[in-house]
Amino acid sequence: MRILILFVAVLLAQPVVGQQPVRQLVNDPAQQHRWLSSYREFLSIPNVLGDSVNMLRNAEAIRAMLAAAGVSSELLTVNKPHSAPVVFGEVKSPGATTTIAFYAHYDGQPVNPRQWAPGLEPFVPALYSDRLDRGGKALPFPSAGDRIDGSWRLYGRGSADDKAGVFAIIAAYESLKKTGRKATVNIKFFFEGEEEAGSIHLADIFQKYRSKLDADLWVICDGPRHISGRKQIVFGVRGDVNVDLKVYAAKRPLHSGNYGNWAPNPAMRLAQLLAGMKDGEGKVLIEGFYDDVTPLSAMEQEALRRIPAVEDILRKDLALGKPDGAGRSFMELLTMPTLNINGMASGNVGAMASNQIPTEASAVLDLRLVAGNDVERQVGKLVRHIEKQGYQVIDHEPSDAERMQYPLLAFVARRDGGYNAQRTPMDLPIAQRVAEAIASTAGEEIVRVPSSGGSLPLFVFEQYLGTRPVTVPVVNYDNNQHAENENVKLSFLWEGIETMAAIMLLKQPVSIRNK
Amino acid sequence: MRILILFVAVLLAQPVVGQQPVRQLVNDPAQQHRWLSSYREFLSIPNVLGDSVNMLRNAEAIRAMLAAAGVSSELLTVNKPHSAPVVFGEVKSPGATTTIAFYAHYDGQPVNPRQWAPGLEPFVPALYSDRLDRGGKALPFPSAGDRIDGSWRLYGRGSADDKAGVFAIIAAYESLKKTGRKATVNIKFFFEGEEEAGSIHLADIFQKYRSKLDADLWVICDGPRHISGRKQIVFGVRGDVNVDLKVYAAKRPLHSGNYGNWAPNPAMRLAQLLAGMKDGEGKVLIEGFYDDVTPLSAMEQEALRRIPAVEDILRKDLALGKPDGAGRSFMELLTMPTLNINGMASGNVGAMASNQIPTEASAVLDLRLVAGNDVERQVGKLVRHIEKQGYQVIDHEPSDAERMQYPLLAFVARRDGGYNAQRTPMDLPIAQRVAEAIASTAGEEIVRVPSSGGSLPLFVFEQYLGTRPVTVPVVNYDNNQHAENENVKLSFLWEGIETMAAIMLLKQPVSIRNK
Repeated sequence: MRILILFVAVLLAQPVVGQQPVRQLVNDPAQQHRWLSSYREFLSIPNVLGDSVNMLRNAEAIRAMLAAAGVSSELLTVNKPHSAPVVFGEVKSPGATTTIAFYAHYDGQPVNPRQWAPGLEPFVPALYSDRLDRGGKALPFPSAGDRIDGSWRLYGRGSADDKAGVFAIIAAYESLKKTGRKATVNIKFFFEGEEEAGSIHLADIFQKYRSKLDADLWVICDGPRHISGRKQIVFGVRGDVNVDLKVYAAKRPLHSGNYGNWAPNPAMRLAQLLAGMKDGEGKVLIEGFYDDVTPLSAMEQEALRRIPAVEDILRKDLALGKPDGAGRSFMELLTMPTLNINGMASGNVGAMASNQIPTEASAVLDLRLVAGNDVERQVGKLVRHIEKQGYQVIDHEPSDAERMQYPLLAFVARRDGGYNAQRTPMDLPIAQRVAEAIASTAGEEIVRVPSSGGSLPLFVFEQYLGTRPVTVPVVNYDNNQHAENENVKLSFLWEGIETMAAIMLLKQPVSIRNK
Repeated sequence: MRILILFVAVLLAQPVVGQQPVRQLVNDPAQQHRWLSSYREFLSIPNVLGDSVNMLRNAEAIRAMLAAAGVSSELLTVNKPHSAPVVFGEVKSPGATTTIAFYAHYDGQPVNPRQWAPGLEPFVPALYSDRLDRGGKALPFPSAGDRIDGSWRLYGRGSADDKAGVFAIIAAYESLKKTGRKATVNIKFFFEGEEEAGSIHLADIFQKYRSKLDADLWVICDGPRHISGRKQIVFGVRGDVNVDLKVYAAKRPLHSGNYGNWAPNPAMRLAQLLAGMKDGEGKVLIEGFYDDVTPLSAMEQEALRRIPAVEDILRKDLALGKPDGAGRSFMELLTMPTLNINGMASGNVGAMASNQIPTEASAVLDLRLVAGNDVERQVGKLVRHIEKQGYQVIDHEPSDAERMQYPLLAFVARRDGGYNAQRTPMDLPIAQRVAEAIASTAGEEIVRVPSSGGSLPLFVFEQYLGTRPVTVPVVNYDNNQHAENENVKLSFLWEGIETMAAIMLLKQPVSIRNK
């Protein structure tokens, strides 16, 4: 209810031309105060898919924020287990011929609270004077009238990925109303709750509600701004699929002395299997891994060249001696498919380690895909590689007979929710207009990225809605999204609100609906 | 106190020659009842070093059991943190010229209760009709008069390793008294509480209490009987040292999409580092790893040949398709040094896995040593191998400057408590007498092992006491010692009591003290 109350407070403001009034509002300390309080409350609702009670609380909080901005909304649902509703709202703008749909997601990655820094809890938002590893100190939440510094960080799961997107979009529309500006385009609000699980029901939603979801362009507010700090627009995303991998040895844990040298060690087997998948510079050695990648167009190559180099900033910031990639640029490497070990485990380490030969060793792999790749085909290459190492690949826990029959057994299972990459042509007119709108709020050249490193299931926009998406991220790159200690830098949140408002004030909107 | 009460009950029994009266007592259902109740109570006291309150409770329980058998005891201690007392007792036998000291340890390996089977807790002893993975069913503890089946299993940490040793030795002496037999040797009881941590203060204890600890032979009751089920005597042990290994990448966890292909993955680095340490058949590839191994004597080689082959039994029991070792025999492989991965971890697997590039990857290695190896030298070979792979080896968490300077950084730390192997010559006369005593209780040839695969710090007996040890294990081999679901088969516990009693009734004892 505090969210509602905070949002109904409307500032006095006069409508003038251009972005100026929105910027003034965004920079207004009293308004920042209200936003910070409201966002803190939003982040305190746990948002891991599977926690269905809290997912619904999140959806209701978003509806309350929309209502406070004058937007009526509804829940779009599929009648399936482990689903979370989409919050959908729509406003028509008088005289507008173009419709832009704004997408963000309110669910977050799973959390392991023990991995968060002392004093931090994933769902107890906490304010710090700077990034933790740069000596940031805990701050009390400011009282009304206190100064709010844009360099402060707000910590909590979802603070960056991607409640920031939800919040920036709604606050942008609220800002238009508060400053008396009129959107030049019809606006659709679409907030999903299953993105971190691979947007497992997004295609179902698109099919079921297709008539509501027609738009000339979808603006996806997710992911981080460019590492240089510049605002950016992204025309494509990598696809993604997770694979569980497990190898086996003796079916009982064994004393490492009484059996050592005779009983095989599954951790060693897994190490040897994984080690052969990449060379020392990170190039994937799986046969045909890069064969079906679509080459970059001339415009995409030129865009890559114009992107500021970030390698030195990154290396210093991450204290990284030498990156992978054999000298290729950071941005170029993001246009290639990946094979990442998300996690690897066998036996115990640290104080719980004991002198045993474990029974099995597990890894979770993350394969990112680019234009030209296909989920099914990419996982197939991995499976064939494992088979070539002498493994019998199985899709179930092995029986004793199977263990006896096949000296090397590997359980390989593609997780649900994998999807292919998507790329919107960089010369699409309405996408160019959006890029110009973003540029109008920035004091420097913005970054135009042919394809981001991260993934979103954007292929479904083309496949089920026949529309192109572009991604306009708002948060800082050093936000620890997907890991512990996720955070957003407040100045990025404020600037994100201004960016989204600028897109709602798009000049010369061009419909592509009937092209 | 129940322990005391159970132990003071003395059976009527007539002294006769040979082992017969002891065997009758061991097979007596009423006596087995008392032992089971008493042992259950002993196992319910947590015995992980570091839990000093419970370690002292264990020591006091042992003193109570000794007192009940008529043996006065004392605690031998060193004034050091993280130490546990030795329980020491001594009895003189009229006319005896030979002294045998009996060693066992009451501490157990660290436990991770979550890894134990549903319904099992490490320190809540539980009785099962068979091994869990063979369909064993939970049984109520029997009431007096109920039948006790020797094939039942008692589950709990320490049930096999090595409270069974402590219990068998004390119960053996108690059995002599109950059956009116007189020990032919002077007996010393020595029960340690730091074995699983590498017997870190055993040398200190030996030096401080050397005058009390003089003996002609030490009988070490620890480890499992031969896999064939036969009783055995072991003339040597491998040494052991644990090494912590950690490799690093970017200092913050990173989104696997936004950085994938550019930011190195520490799990892949660890996999590649570990993979190069062994070939596909388990042979260690570290330079010079086998160079300083002392070759087996002709008598030792002959003993190895006489040991029943167990490979087929083991393979079936463990559902193991193909062992390591390139076709060499199980027993021969145990006479070679090992490199085992006890545990390996990076990021998360299973439901907590997320699409991130972890910051570090860890492993705990276990190096077993044989005669000729040296702890310092063996760890040195490992360190040089890691350095040869391009790693800068450090002994502390790296600074940002170090991370920037050295693309490949490996933290390598030898854990406290490592020690060398020990071997007693197989032709030592008193050891031969002990072997004969064991054989007198067995209906078949016993197994004489030149060196076991497991480790005990037996070198300290030679170094600080000038005495040789032999190991006489009592428990079943499939006991899961060092891992979850540790258990003892009751028939092995009963037979172990008889074995220990036979050694106390040694024929023609031969002193080697003044040789």
